[in-house]
Formats: sequence, C-alpha cells, structure tokens
Amino acid sequence: MPVSLGELAVSIGCELIGDPDVVVSDVASLENATPQSLTFLSSASYIKQLPSTKAAAVVLRAEEADACPVAAFITDNPYATYARMAALVRPEASFEPGIHDTAVVSLSASVALSAHIAANVVIGERSIVGKNTFVGPGTVIGPDCRVGDDCRFVANVTLVKRVEIGARGLFHPGLVIGSDGFGNAMTPEGWVKIPQLGGVSIGDDVEIGSNTTVDCGAIGDTVIKHGARIDNLCMIAHNVHIGEHTALACQTAIAGSTKIGDRCLFAGRSGAVGHLNVCDDVIVLSRAVLTKDVTAPGTYSGSFPAELADTWAKQVARFRRLGNLIARVKKLE
Amino acid sequence: MPVSLGELAVSIGCELIGDPDVVVSDVASLENATPQSLTFLSSASYIKQLPSTKAAAVVLRAEEADACPVAAFITDNPYATYARMAALVRPEASFEPGIHDTAVVSLSASVALSAHIAANVVIGERSIVGKNTFVGPGTVIGPDCRVGDDCRFVANVTLVKRVEIGARGLFHPGLVIGSDGFGNAMTPEGWVKIPQLGGVSIGDDVEIGSNTTVDCGAIGDTVIKHGARIDNLCMIAHNVHIGEHTALACQTAIAGSTKIGDRCLFAGRSGAVGHLNVCDDVIVLSRAVLTKDVTAPGTYSGSFPAELADTWAKQVARFRRLGNLIARVKKLE
Amino acid sequence: MPVSLGELAVSIGCELIGDPDVVVSDVASLENATPQSLTFLSSASYIKQLPSTKAAAVVLRAEEADACPVAAFITDNPYATYARMAALVRPEASFEPGIHDTAVVSLSASVALSAHIAANVVIGERSIVGKNTFVGPGTVIGPDCRVGDDCRFVANVTLVKRVEIGARGLFHPGLVIGSDGFGNAMTPEGWVKIPQLGGVSIGDDVEIGSNTTVDCGAIGDTVIKHGARIDNLCMIAHNVHIGEHTALACQTAIAGSTKIGDRCLFAGRSGAVGHLNVCDDVIVLSRAVLTKDVTAPGTYSGSFPAELADTWAKQVARFRRLGNLIARVKKLE
Repeated sequence: MPVSLGELAVSIGCELIGDPDVVVSDVASLENATPQSLTFLSSASYIKQLPSTKAAAVVLRAEEADACPVAAFITDNPYATYARMAALVRPEASFEPGIHDTAVVSLSASVALSAHIAANVVIGERSIVGKNTFVGPGTVIGPDCRVGDDCRFVANVTLVKRVEIGARGLFHPGLVIGSDGFGNAMTPEGWVKIPQLGGVSIGDDVEIGSNTTVDCGAIGDTVIKHGARIDNLCMIAHNVHIGEHTALACQTAIAGSTKIGDRCLFAGRSGAVGHLNVCDDVIVLSRAVLTKDVTAPGTYSGSFPAELADTWAKQVARFRRLGNLIARVKKLE
Repeated sequence: MPVSLGELAVSIGCELIGDPDVVVSDVASLENATPQSLTFLSSASYIKQLPSTKAAAVVLRAEEADACPVAAFITDNPYATYARMAALVRPEASFEPGIHDTAVVSLSASVALSAHIAANVVIGERSIVGKNTFVGPGTVIGPDCRVGDDCRFVANVTLVKRVEIGARGLFHPGLVIGSDGFGNAMTPEGWVKIPQLGGVSIGDDVEIGSNTTVDCGAIGDTVIKHGARIDNLCMIAHNVHIGEHTALACQTAIAGSTKIGDRCLFAGRSGAVGHLNVCDDVIVLSRAVLTKDVTAPGTYSGSFPAELADTWAKQVARFRRLGNLIARVKKLE
Repeated sequence: MPVSLGELAVSIGCELIGDPDVVVSDVASLENATPQSLTFLSSASYIKQLPSTKAAAVVLRAEEADACPVAAFITDNPYATYARMAALVRPEASFEPGIHDTAVVSLSASVALSAHIAANVVIGERSIVGKNTFVGPGTVIGPDCRVGDDCRFVANVTLVKRVEIGARGLFHPGLVIGSDGFGNAMTPEGWVKIPQLGGVSIGDDVEIGSNTTVDCGAIGDTVIKHGARIDNLCMIAHNVHIGEHTALACQTAIAGSTKIGDRCLFAGRSGAVGHLNVCDDVIVLSRAVLTKDVTAPGTYSGSFPAELADTWAKQVARFRRLGNLIARVKKLE
C-alpha cells in the first residue's frame, strides 16, 4: 500500500530527514532496495551497503544518518521501527466477515459477526470465536474453546478442547493446541493412561509457529502468558507455564510442569526437563537443556559446535580416556 | 460424572477407608482439591500437602493412610489406580454413530455402523473402519487401511496408505502414519527415489502423539507393537520395529530399520541410529542416542546438562586442549 | 504391475543374465523374496543371503553375479537401478483428472484440466496448479502460489502464500511451506513482529517430508534448489538457501539466512546456526550443528554416542574437573 514518508514518520512517531512527500510501496534489503522501497540498517555488519543503497528511505540510528545517501528515519531501535512501518506498507490482507458454506459450526457455538470462518473449518460445541478473528481453511476448533478478538489462525490449526486464547494471537499451520499430555502409569499389564483433564490458557499477543504442539494440562491448565513468541516444531508439555514476552526458537521443548519466567530466550533446539522453576530473564543458548532450577538471570549453554570429523573423533577418544589421564597425573604426583 | 466412593472402590477393586456414599464429580491436585474432588498421592515430594487437602478422597499407599485427613483409597500403585478412577469420574465425551454429511467415503471403503465419521473426513479406497471408532474432523484415511474397533482419531490425523491398526488406539492431531520413508540412491544425475512400498502395522492399545511421523516400510512393514506409547513430534523411520509397551517421549527419533525391544523407555529428544537391534528393558536418558546394538537391559546416557555460559565455554576450551594436556603429562612421565 | 525381466532390462538399460520372459509382479528383500519378486543386493552385509534367495531376479554388481542362484541384472549402482525398476513394477496409483465437488477453488485461481484436486482441498486467490499435478485431500494452497507440472501433494499439505514450486515435486502430509519466519524486535513494551513479506522458491524434483516446516523469507525468498531431498520434521527457516541435490535427514534444522551448497548431506537431527555460508559437498554427521562458515568440502561431527549411564556420569564428572586436572599438571611442571 503506497504510503508517504511523512505519513510513516507521523504514524510511528520518529524523525524523518528527507522529503515527506516521497512515497514507498514496498520493503527491501539495503542491497536490493529500489526508489519505491523502505529499508533499514540495524546491524553493523550491513553498514558498508548503506552508501550505495537505492532505497527511498532507510530506518537507522542517528549516528548513521550522515552516511545515508537517501531519506532517513532516525530511531534508537531501527529493527522495531522498521517492523512497525513495514506493517503499514505491506499490511495483512483484509478479509470479509462471514462463515463459508463448507464450514461446519456447532449449533451451540458462538461466532462474532465480524469473524471470518474459512472453507472446511469445523467449530465444536460451546466454543466461542471473537470479533475480527480470522479462522483459516481446514482449522478445527474442538469443544469448549474460547478465542478472543483479532486473532488469526492461518490454516489447518487444531485446537483440541478447552483452549482459551486472548486477543490478537497469531497461530500458524499444523499447530496443535490442547492435545493430551503424555501421562502413563506402568502396571504389570502395561501402561495405564492418565486422563488429561486440564485445558490450555493463552494470553494476548501470543504467536505460535507451524507444527508446534502445546498439550493440555493433566489437572489444571498449561499456561502461555501474554506476549510470548514460540517458533515452529516446539513442544510445550502438559502443565508447563511460559512467562510474558518469553521467546522459544524452533524445536525447543519444555517438559511437563516446568515453569519458565518472563522475558526468557530459548535458542533453537534448547529446552528444559520437567518440574523445574526457571526465573525471569534467563537465556538458554542453542541446544542447551536446563536440568536444574534457575534462580538468577543469566545465560546458559551446554552444546558443542561441529568440528571436522577427524578432529572430533580424536577429541571424543581423549574424553573417553580422561580416567586414564587422571590416574597418570595422580601417579606423577 | 458424579460417582460415589463406594462405586469407585468396587469398580477398580481397592480398599476404601471412609464413607462409601460420598460422591465425587471431578479430579484435582492435592493442593487445589475441593470436597467434590478425587485426588492422589504418588510421589513423596507432595506428602506435605496431604494433611491440609480438602479433597473428598485421596488415592494413596497404605503407609500414608494414617496421615490422610479425608477418605482414602489404599493401593500399591496410586498413580495407576487414580488413572482408572479418573477415567470413570471424567469419562471421554460420548459420540453419535454415523457419517457426517461433509465426510467423503470411498464406495469401496467399509465403515462400521457404530463408528463416528466426523466433518470433512476423507476415507479412501478399500479402507475399513471398525466398530465404535471415532474418526475426528479433518482426518484423512488413505487407501488400503484397516482400522480396528474402539479407536479414536482426535482430529486432522493422516493415515497415508497401507496402515493397519488394532483395537483401542488413540491418535492425536497432526500425526502422520504411512508417509514415504526417506530412501534415495545417488547417481551422477542426482538422487533417485527408492519407492517406499511397505505399510505400517500397529498393534492394540497404542497411543501416538501430535505431529509425530511414522513412515511406511521400504519393503515390508514398519511395526509398532501393542501397548506402545509415543509422544509428540517423534520420528519413526521406515522399517523400524517398536516393541510392546515401549514408550518414547517427545522428539525421540528412531532411524531406519532399527528394532527396539519391549518395555524400553526413551526420554525426550533421545533416539537410535539406523540398523540397530536394541533388546528389551533398555532405558535411554534425555537426548542420548544409541549408536550400537544393545544386548543387555540397562540405562544409557550421553548428554550434558546446561551450565552458566561462561563456565561451559571454559570447559569446552579445556576439552579442545586435551591433546595438549595429554602431551604435557607424557612429557612429565 | 507384472513386468518381464526383458522389459525391465530394456527400459532401464542394463544387462540381464537369465530368462527375459520371466515375469515379476512385486519387490521384496533378498530374504523374503518369492519367485514373483524382484530384489537387489547393494550392501556387502547382505551377501550371505544371496545364495538362498528365492527371487525371480536380483539387481547386483558384476562381481556378485556368479554367486547369484537366479536371474541377475548387472549394474554399477544396484540401489539406483533397483529403484528405477521398482517404480515400474509397483507404479504410483494413477488418478482421474478433475476437481472434487467438495474442493473450494478461488475464482481467480487456475487449475490445469489434467490436475486432480481431491476432496476438501482449498486453493486461494491467484494461485496456479500445473498439469498432471495431484493435490491430495485436505491440502490448502493459499494465495499467490504457483505449482508446476507433475507434482504430488499427498494429503493435508499447507502452502501458506507466495510459494513457487517447479515440476515433479513430492510433498508429504503435514508439511507447511511459506509460514511466517520467526522475526521479532524487542522493545520496552514487548516483542514487535517483523512482517514476513517474502516467499518460497522451490526448484524441480524436490521431495519434502511429513511435518517439516519451510518458512517464507522476511524480505526476499527462502530457496530450495532442484533435486533437494528433505526428510520429516525438519526446519527450514526464513531466507535459507538449500543447494541442488542436497539432502537433509529427519529433524535437521537450518537457521535463518544460512546458505547451504549443492550436494551436501545432513544426517538426522543435525543442522546449522543462522547467517552461515556452507560450501558444496559438505557432510554433517548425526546431531552435529555447524556454527561457522564452511569453505571447503569435508565431514563435520560434534555429538557423543550414548554409553551406559554410570560410565557417562563418570566421564561428565571428569570433564567438569578438567580445570583442576590442568592445574595439577601445571604444578607438576
């Protein structure tokens, strides 16, 4: 959607150096930008591309403004400011309210008139869908779910049962929320399933990625608090609590009943074992898995980077002979 | 469903200390229980919550009965006994038999009259669905599948082709069974796909979690034996065999042609490489991956817990200088 | 489909030792083959099964022909030759062209007359489906997608938006292509979503497995080049490039903006962190994760095999005391 630089400066509230009447209609990288594009500079590693950019305007920090050959938006947080402007330049597609002919909505369900219920959606008994919420094709909302206003279920999402979601959530395809937790008791005759009788409670402004799974609580709810961001292929087990604004990158798994604080960051394929308490502001690096409670903010790590296979094989062999080495040192002592 | 303590004691067959006419209508944790709730005590770490519980009754071991302020069910396995009682107090929702108007069932398929085929289900050629089986919305059952009695496909499950399933199975959303195994032969022109021509054979009383994938065999079947329990986001590759009552926690992956014995336990994100034989009663701890045959029961491990990032970085640096350390010790010797 | 050995030899172009009029109608392993089966010998570990095979014919190397008790196809690459023959003996089921009554196709979409659009498929605005392409049940193709000729979407695949796919692709259930990348900027008020405005570009002859996720680019496209093979439950993040004929086994994750060269092999649960450049012909072993650019072909490793838990616990304890050991050696020096 064509927007003038002046409008962008006013809407987002930041300083513009340059002609406010210039119009942008797309976004691009510094390198590939055209005179119709908005772009941004947030990382020092791209600064060498700034002098030659063809963009209409660049979102950047004050100290980089002098080097900018085109119009500049000045901000302390170029990435966030770019994000807000990009959402104006390239807004989400609008949708018509209404229920598609092929959707199957239970008579006991309640759907806001302004909601969009797409083709082949199924909505179960007693479930509620809020205003301006988009329920994309193939999505199944089981019984006893409550979905707030302005949410977007892209397509093929499954809410199994007893899922409550606040406002402005964004949920990607293949995501499953409210499936049974993994609870089994061993007996001489084999496993007995522990009925999974809780629900899932999700706050406002939560985004959850494709093919992630969020299990319902065994007793009581699994909880994801407002502002949390969860990437693709993650596992949120039964009765986990995820704090406000906590972010989990892809393939992260949080095992049953663990409570993660606010503003934590879990990098890709990291996680935590079950029944832990993790305080606010904890960072867990790629592939590291917490195995104990964490009571103070900090950064945790626990994985090895890949090396040439020969080098690695020698290191593993040395690691395995550590006992021998310790004995040799003891003998020397 | 309201049930009296006396009925529960008789149905499950365990001793009750307390008034058999008291009625429970829900389950709860020891801490949150109300006078309408059944609860349980299975782990010593919760025993301090017992004296103050408000539950109607607690399922526990004989040695804890004296400390119980309310009615008590006495059992050697409180977790399993609770599970069986909870299934009576909070039974699965019943369903009407029949085929929904929007379901598409092949003329050559066969569906038991007592089965429930939900909205937008597709059932392919020559496939069979047994008695009292619930096929939830959006589920696709491809051609040449045979599903036994009393199974439940929650929603959006995909059985691709040639999948046989016994009785009383439970299958969660996003699960894919019978997709092609990953078989490719390299040639100078690129990969040639190995046709994946086998099926999948699943026994009775199997539960498989959300967004797990079970590939068909390349030649012959992938096999999951009765009583197995598989969590979310697991990978069962082509021609794998999973033994009876074996349990795999989330993100576990078993690579092609590996045979896992009975009553094995794989913790979260663990696994086994391909073409192994793993005997009965093997336990694999979190994130450990078997790389050799296992011929005797035992517990296997292979991962590091997360540590403060600074500490970990120093340890990795020392690990990398092990060769240097060994040389120094040799010199000293 | 019954085929004579002579026809197979001519179609695939390889030497036959034996009666060309013998007919095979199925494939089997060396061990389980019947006189109606084609089988193959590609790995030395199965050679002891050759003398007793009951197969109609075995695909093998010249040096093994003398030991073969039945007809033999002689080839330098038995696995690939078997694959090509198996595709003739057990061809994919054919399908009728046409659009199923329950499919919902946008008026602005374009579907080739020879394509098959199965039950409950949804095709969005301005999307195009090529000739002889099979779009299986429950598949959702969002707006602005272009799918080439002779592709097969097995069932329940989701193409979110702006996905371009070449010819002869094969896409398995639960796969999601074009979902939003994981891009967020932190602000004092919480995360601000970075709009994900790019698409996904997939070449010819690409196969992608069940429940894998391929995110769209943030700006510009995520790219998978022709001949690539991606297994189940993999993660291809925004703006990743996967080179020609590169193969990724299950649960592999490639983080944002990383570029992987041609003919690379990533074993199960391996991967690469973001913003890397990885050259052609790199092999990454199981669970190893690249954390730096790779500029020369080679094999990379970085994981430990599982050991008996007691042994492993001792090794971890020794690892943790490495600092102490180094100090002791220094003192001795």
